[in-house]
Amino acid sequence: MPDMEIKDYNNKINKILYVVGIGPGKESGITGEVREILDMCDNWYGYPVYMDLLKDLDKNNSKNKITTKMGYEKERCEMALRSARDGKKTVLICGGDAGVYALAGLILELSEKYLDVEIEILPGVTAATAGAAILGAPLGNDFCVISLSDILTPWEKIEKRLRYAAAGGFAICLYNPASRKRPDYLKRACDILLEILERNIICGWVRNIGRTGETSRICTLGELREESADMFTTVFIGVRETKIIRGRMVTPRGYNNKIY
Amino acid sequence: MPDMEIKDYNNKINKILYVVGIGPGKESGITGEVREILDMCDNWYGYPVYMDLLKDLDKNNSKNKITTKMGYEKERCEMALRSARDGKKTVLICGGDAGVYALAGLILELSEKYLDVEIEILPGVTAATAGAAILGAPLGNDFCVISLSDILTPWEKIEKRLRYAAAGGFAICLYNPASRKRPDYLKRACDILLEILERNIICGWVRNIGRTGETSRICTLGELREESADMFTTVFIGVRETKIIRGRMVTPRGYNNKIY
Repeated sequence: MPDMEIKDYNNKINKILYVVGIGPGKESGITGEVREILDMCDNWYGYPVYMDLLKDLDKNNSKNKITTKMGYEKERCEMALRSARDGKKTVLICGGDAGVYALAGLILELSEKYLDVEIEILPGVTAATAGAAILGAPLGNDFCVISLSDILTPWEKIEKRLRYAAAGGFAICLYNPASRKRPDYLKRACDILLEILERNIICGWVRNIGRTGETSRICTLGELREESADMFTTVFIGVRETKIIRGRMVTPRGYNNKIY
Repeated sequence: MPDMEIKDYNNKINKILYVVGIGPGKESGITGEVREILDMCDNWYGYPVYMDLLKDLDKNNSKNKITTKMGYEKERCEMALRSARDGKKTVLICGGDAGVYALAGLILELSEKYLDVEIEILPGVTAATAGAAILGAPLGNDFCVISLSDILTPWEKIEKRLRYAAAGGFAICLYNPASRKRPDYLKRACDILLEILERNIICGWVRNIGRTGETSRICTLGELREESADMFTTVFIGVRETKIIRGRMVTPRGYNNKIY
């Protein structure tokens, strides 16, 4: 069927592209509904790392796995949309949640050319909450999620958001704090935050959440500046109230001070 | 065993209190690892609504379910800690994620009196990402999560965060936008946001995510001001780039404009 340019929302839609979040890593972090969709779909589209994480869910290697490299997300999405339009049971696999720095939005944008394909999005546990659980409860009150990747967002905008998040008193969770091409971005972000926040603000990071080699550390903002991070690291910056309890990072919500 | 005031971290800990997030509602939104913990633990502590959501997981009614009303979270946590200390297999159940406006932080605070009990926190899908998946992809770029409940946070602080989130260019997800005692809080929040944002900014809300009676709507910020919300509603406020695509709310990340 060629691309339909005529918008006919009344047309019966029975082709579905599932866009799912598989959580941060381990199989046990996948929700029941996403697991069902993965079982049901024969065509898995995704980033190579996710296919590797899911290999135990396809023990007899019966799934048709189609991957594209990082940077080729649009191509991956177009291929998945075409697969669904051709009537194949298709799932596009995202790490963490399907809509947080992931492909749900791009699929919806591109799907305007595939009006006979319905888009069903199923959420997953995102790194902000999965990493938080490992550290303790750093996001126990209002928080911001900011990606330090400037591939799709200009650095000035990222810098501005860091300033507003810190000045607004939000705990901050940083995705993509560094990569091979951006080795010093976490340091640059810390320097901006240190213009507003005290050096002794409690921070933490988790690398490879739920995956082999999971590591984490709690430190101060001053120390965080010197930590090394990569694209599999999630960083947490506390607020003034954030403290260390039994070696865990905790941003209290205030329950404990509430007078009944 | 009486409360231990002596901190002895070298003591062998073999008592565990599990603090888990069950996702927003339906059973299929629970992760595999949380499901395992619920199966394994005989003593379920939680808010009555969550027990009701989980009733199909305890078909033969073998679990010992202990609930306290809203406002008695500290009592609920203390009871769960005592249960774990007494050697009982105990889980404290949170809606959504265990650490987002939930009890992981309070448990860690209170656990200083229960040093022989280890706290294990397991994340869940929080309403921000579960509601986003229903609306489309409203949180496709940097975002803030703010609770409008002023029971534990002074309203001035909430107001300040709304201003900084809007001025910083974040998409915003509002938890607890209203309750019976705070019927007009969403309107008050919209009025603050309208000082900074245009009336035609795309917004949306979802009520009873993943539960019976799930409803949602996409509207403008000007219209959101007139919408009714309750404590089971999650609200999404877009940014200037947010648009409606095929009836869904999408905050693009920029993939579609990227030049390869």
